[in-house]
Amino acid sequence: MSKTEDPKKSLKEFSLKIISQLDKGKNPQITFPLRNLSNIIYDKKAGILKLGKKIGTREFFNVSHAKKFLQTVEVASIIKKELLESGKHSSLRDVFYMAKRTVPGTTINIVDDQTESDKAIEDLEVITTLSRENMHVNANKNGSVAGKVIIKDKEDTIDWSKLGSGGWSIPSNVEEIEFKKVSAKYVLYMEKAAVWERLNEDKYWQKNDAIIVSSQGQTTRGIRRLLQRLYEEYHLPIYVLCDGDIYGAYIYSVIKYGSIALAHAAERLTIPGVKYIGITMEDVEKYDLKKHFIKLDDKDYARIKQVSEYDWFKENKAWQKQFKMMKDYKSKVEIQSLSARGISFISETYLPNKIKNKEFLD
Amino acid sequence: MSKTEDPKKSLKEFSLKIISQLDKGKNPQITFPLRNLSNIIYDKKAGILKLGKKIGTREFFNVSHAKKFLQTVEVASIIKKELLESGKHSSLRDVFYMAKRTVPGTTINIVDDQTESDKAIEDLEVITTLSRENMHVNANKNGSVAGKVIIKDKEDTIDWSKLGSGGWSIPSNVEEIEFKKVSAKYVLYMEKAAVWERLNEDKYWQKNDAIIVSSQGQTTRGIRRLLQRLYEEYHLPIYVLCDGDIYGAYIYSVIKYGSIALAHAAERLTIPGVKYIGITMEDVEKYDLKKHFIKLDDKDYARIKQVSEYDWFKENKAWQKQFKMMKDYKSKVEIQSLSARGISFISETYLPNKIKNKEFLD
Repeated sequence: MSKTEDPKKSLKEFSLKIISQLDKGKNPQITFPLRNLSNIIYDKKAGILKLGKKIGTREFFNVSHAKKFLQTVEVASIIKKELLESGKHSSLRDVFYMAKRTVPGTTINIVDDQTESDKAIEDLEVITTLSRENMHVNANKNGSVAGKVIIKDKEDTIDWSKLGSGGWSIPSNVEEIEFKKVSAKYVLYMEKAAVWERLNEDKYWQKNDAIIVSSQGQTTRGIRRLLQRLYEEYHLPIYVLCDGDIYGAYIYSVIKYGSIALAHAAERLTIPGVKYIGITMEDVEKYDLKKHFIKLDDKDYARIKQVSEYDWFKENKAWQKQFKMMKDYKSKVEIQSLSARGISFISETYLPNKIKNKEFLD
Repeated sequence: MSKTEDPKKSLKEFSLKIISQLDKGKNPQITFPLRNLSNIIYDKKAGILKLGKKIGTREFFNVSHAKKFLQTVEVASIIKKELLESGKHSSLRDVFYMAKRTVPGTTINIVDDQTESDKAIEDLEVITTLSRENMHVNANKNGSVAGKVIIKDKEDTIDWSKLGSGGWSIPSNVEEIEFKKVSAKYVLYMEKAAVWERLNEDKYWQKNDAIIVSSQGQTTRGIRRLLQRLYEEYHLPIYVLCDGDIYGAYIYSVIKYGSIALAHAAERLTIPGVKYIGITMEDVEKYDLKKHFIKLDDKDYARIKQVSEYDWFKENKAWQKQFKMMKDYKSKVEIQSLSARGISFISETYLPNKIKNKEFLD
């Protein structure tokens, strides 16, 4: 969707359609692309997961549709009135509690379970082409960032290079922040906060003109959108640093291609140009990490099989080679094993070498 | 320990003791308080969990002690040489990799598993009375903070009231930050980042002269030390806001009394004066939250039984009443159920009322 589109207007259009159907004496209906697995396709050309052409319909006068219809309309109303018009943001959980009220004159709740309001929000995303974030429904908050960047966030001007050992705490929603000055050559995203703290203490971002971003655990939608905005608006390369294992490969693939659960939001969240900087299986020989190998277990092997068969990895020779090497080595290796080479080996040698020699996986 | 003590000096004293034993031709030994469950006691007067008087000894010329002795000395050496002398910080995982090398002339690794280097660090904590953080070994990084506070963190001056929607990302180690200006009447810590985002967007901290702190998931050591420093150095009351369930009660108790796993660090991490602001079982009636009850399951009941029998809860009538009400209601209730009363009900009504009426649990 166009980022300048007014979410209030989109939701109003949605409701006007229903009103116009009612005015014509028709059974009101909502149509939208189906989000089930049979309608999720890997678009090779665009390099992203997305929804296919199958369309679902929801009618008001239909016993099996009526409740979902009502939920979608109620949630749309909450989003417009409680969030967009007040300028406030909230979480999925809050929207659930706001929607959880009885239908007047009955003892029936509009929603009984959060999955119902969550689904309604996803429906509204595909119906309106707005994102959750555009509708002020935030995802989880997680992660830190540092670098030579100045942003404006409402009335505050924030310099990411002057935030000490902590960095800026990435909000769940980065749609409204404004980049005022971006002096960086690339963005380095890492899955581990401890590695981020190492690079931050070493002032890696200053010495290398980089922006460093980390999460602790999942790569939230806020982080993904932050990376994407830097990629699209400033054409900065994005490099991903993960453990040398199948979970690292998957984290990378979600940033690059999207995930099944969020296929309907792929265009808004994926970054086709992102590159994987390490740890690769080649690094094991090169940096003498074999003695830090961790044996694969059954779960790891099963996950390698599964991930290697995903459409977006199936024909990727470089990655298939990685998966084969993992199996041949029967092992995985962690980013932090580089510490055995010296506490700042990662920031002084490993990363600068990789960047200089353009040693990336695509 | 005294916070002005020099960690390098403490570690040097530790090593000098060993050298002096060697010089005298003695079998070198290390003594320290035992950290197993039989030596963890609840100090009623101080209101914290701590180690008892049982002492363990580790000798070098003793087949069952030699490896652990070596590990303790090696880790002490890494901490002094690689961390303290360089001024750098690292994680437990990094220390493990730094210690993971073979004993010269053998094929035996000094450590094979991270639990070994972790234990050595805990040993050094009780031997020297330094904390991990004093020894530059950081815990997890997590959480955000906002409020009318200005800190100095190395060369950066950071104003927690000018960090937009994200806030300052709390580092894993807050020992070296300096408070320059603290204009707040109390600190509010909440377990949920989504609630923090609600309060931050509503500028709760500005309107109420508060500092708001959140984690996402566990209350890390960094967060606990941050709360503790504000409590001890600025005498600010600390209020904890959690879900109205047994897990919330436990989160609160860890901040207040400490945890079994960290009993040896209790004096450095606990905050006996902290108070619980909600959600309480009384709030259910008062704020009409019954319809947002979530049924307890077997796991919840088992945990209520377990937590209610902990020494530090056993004689606490107010909390025993909470546990009984949870069982009578057969239910728990989330902070965010307050959103059903209006998106900003929590920041405009619930919290200000609680603070004004001093409705806290101790």
